[in-house]
Amino acid sequence: MSTIITLTTDFGNKDPWVGAVKGVILSINPEAIIVDISHGISQQQVVEGSFVLSHAYPYFPKGTIHVAVVDPGVGTERRPVLIETERYFFIGPDNGLFTQVLTGENVKQVIELDNSDYFLPDVSMTFHGRDIFAPTAAHLSLGVAPSQMGTMMEESITLELPCVEISPDIIRGEVLYIDSFGNLITNIKETDLSEMLACGDIDIDVRWRTIHGLVESYTEGSHGERTDGAVALIGSSGFLEIAAFKDNAAVALGVSVGERVDIRLRLKLS
Amino acid sequence: MSTIITLTTDFGNKDPWVGAVKGVILSINPEAIIVDISHGISQQQVVEGSFVLSHAYPYFPKGTIHVAVVDPGVGTERRPVLIETERYFFIGPDNGLFTQVLTGENVKQVIELDNSDYFLPDVSMTFHGRDIFAPTAAHLSLGVAPSQMGTMMEESITLELPCVEISPDIIRGEVLYIDSFGNLITNIKETDLSEMLACGDIDIDVRWRTIHGLVESYTEGSHGERTDGAVALIGSSGFLEIAAFKDNAAVALGVSVGERVDIRLRLKLS
Amino acid sequence: MSTIITLTTDFGNKDPWVGAVKGVILSINPEAIIVDISHGISQQQVVEGSFVLSHAYPYFPKGTIHVAVVDPGVGTERRPVLIETERYFFIGPDNGLFTQVLTGENVKQVIELDNSDYFLPDVSMTFHGRDIFAPTAAHLSLGVAPSQMGTMMEESITLELPCVEISPDIIRGEVLYIDSFGNLITNIKETDLSEMLACGDIDIDVRWRTIHGLVESYTEGSHGERTDGAVALIGSSGFLEIAAFKDNAAVALGVSVGERVDIRLRLKLS
Repeated sequence: MSTIITLTTDFGNKDPWVGAVKGVILSINPEAIIVDISHGISQQQVVEGSFVLSHAYPYFPKGTIHVAVVDPGVGTERRPVLIETERYFFIGPDNGLFTQVLTGENVKQVIELDNSDYFLPDVSMTFHGRDIFAPTAAHLSLGVAPSQMGTMMEESITLELPCVEISPDIIRGEVLYIDSFGNLITNIKETDLSEMLACGDIDIDVRWRTIHGLVESYTEGSHGERTDGAVALIGSSGFLEIAAFKDNAAVALGVSVGERVDIRLRLKLS
Repeated sequence: MSTIITLTTDFGNKDPWVGAVKGVILSINPEAIIVDISHGISQQQVVEGSFVLSHAYPYFPKGTIHVAVVDPGVGTERRPVLIETERYFFIGPDNGLFTQVLTGENVKQVIELDNSDYFLPDVSMTFHGRDIFAPTAAHLSLGVAPSQMGTMMEESITLELPCVEISPDIIRGEVLYIDSFGNLITNIKETDLSEMLACGDIDIDVRWRTIHGLVESYTEGSHGERTDGAVALIGSSGFLEIAAFKDNAAVALGVSVGERVDIRLRLKLS
Repeated sequence: MSTIITLTTDFGNKDPWVGAVKGVILSINPEAIIVDISHGISQQQVVEGSFVLSHAYPYFPKGTIHVAVVDPGVGTERRPVLIETERYFFIGPDNGLFTQVLTGENVKQVIELDNSDYFLPDVSMTFHGRDIFAPTAAHLSLGVAPSQMGTMMEESITLELPCVEISPDIIRGEVLYIDSFGNLITNIKETDLSEMLACGDIDIDVRWRTIHGLVESYTEGSHGERTDGAVALIGSSGFLEIAAFKDNAAVALGVSVGERVDIRLRLKLS
């Protein structure tokens, strides 16, 4: 069956590991359509992996199987897991990688993958992507029921992602992800801002910089009224983003993931 | 329908953006065959993107849809465009990315993509790759006529690529692209050289170096008669290339894109 | 026919070369399923390419065509080759890239690709991946017999990979490959160790470090009994591997490919 199976890993683009995973899937279901989301997650960075997955998976068709492997705890007691939601299946380690799925999707069931009938015959202690997750995904794509593959779980692990603090005076969030353009993507949603924006103009404080108001596109950073081309805008995922015109905002502003971002009503001297 | 859709972008291999584009395409046409040409274009480098696209697209079968997104002007007045040629379709921003297509192919029509029926429901100001180009390509692959997707355009934007100056004494070109092996690919075509080669031996000047004559393959740089292993040859795309045996010519010669390359008849002291 | 064709190259993820190869294949067989194993092999590093290929190819289904191109001798007398084994086909330069295939697989025939009917019409001296290997793979995927594509060869080139020296007192191997996690993969197989392990505990010497015994998973490096988190274990491919908990062992230990690894019985002071 020509089900789509996506891959999100920290395996990089050099080693044989991604190829081995694809080979295992195609050996079980030669008609599976394998789609790479990313193999460039920083190694063992589960939070980053969960971010990348969460910004790509919702665009795939119903029935897609999303395999994600960022797995520093491979070979320990962390459980291999299959999550079935209303629209998708997710397969990978139960280590928080699926936090946004578990908190944001309509979850139907979570299965601990403990039926080795659907694993490779020899399961290594260090490469469950190839030995457990790939074959499970392939069997699932052939129509095996999730319930056959393991045991229902009551709870699974979610990361404590930083919350946005909203008060009448200040909205405080932080930089969640820096993309390869250097854009700073925060955890502040468009809707978090709506009330404050209704009251007047806003200022955005990040690092030592204050950015005045929101723009609509990256190129408005070229208009000159703004120092150093740094602008704030609602990005393509609906979150507040800080960018720099034809520049890398992360480098220009000296900001890393976790940096605090404050939004205030602009004082009017009238 | 199993049409091929290629992708050429500057999105890199880490972020969720490529995955989102693929998801959008497959949600509209699950049978589309998506082929990555490159996601490693240097960010916002339209000239580089146009070079990479132009050296890969001609090898694909008739009917292939080529999507290219290097789009520093996203969200501004630059137009989203669909170009139909005798063999292919090209979709992306009208910013010069399709220069070699527009000047070298038999263009049938150029359409400004202004019919939002073929976009995602919510179009962001910052990610037209996902919201406009991907869905347009997918609908096109299902057989929607280009004329339904927008308005015919009279003109579209082409880059002024550097010309080769040819005189009886000297042929002057420049380095257009440096590939990841460090080979310097110039804008001088094999045919530009034919007349001079008919008259005698040639010398190639680049930076502080003079290379004597052409070789046929990279390994001739190992023969020792040539200083530092630098050689000149007609590369696989039919352009003059400067390479270094088992070395990175760009680094060894200290050359960047735009460096001038002069070709002269060798003086005979007889 | 929907045959799988894998690609393993040193072309990188930026240039148009990978795209051109895929275009050529799909122009000849639009139903070929192209799977990237790696395009990140270090340039012209045949040994590394052979390692990556050898750790990925065995996972693919019977009948898969594996194309590998790490080809410093392109355009010289090195021969383009097609190897048919019991399960697979391998296509690429005859330069040692297929060493593990030739020594480890049941080889049925080796063909020198000298029938230009199956090449692109114009074969460049510098890009046989596009002009010879891609079209050959595509024609093969359509059912052309290997024997039609060239001439049987008696011998082909294999690399002299470093051997493990086994004596009662010491097992001496070396680091063959360092993956992108920094794990040091040696040429010492699990079976090489079995006899010594039956006699008692072992110590592993690498660089200035002695690691005591084997662990089962990477995370055991966190238990604190081991200096600097360096651990030794049998990796997912059945070879002795040296890793560091949440760290890059290659950097932490200052080790490169070729570094010697010695295994000794631990002295018991009793």
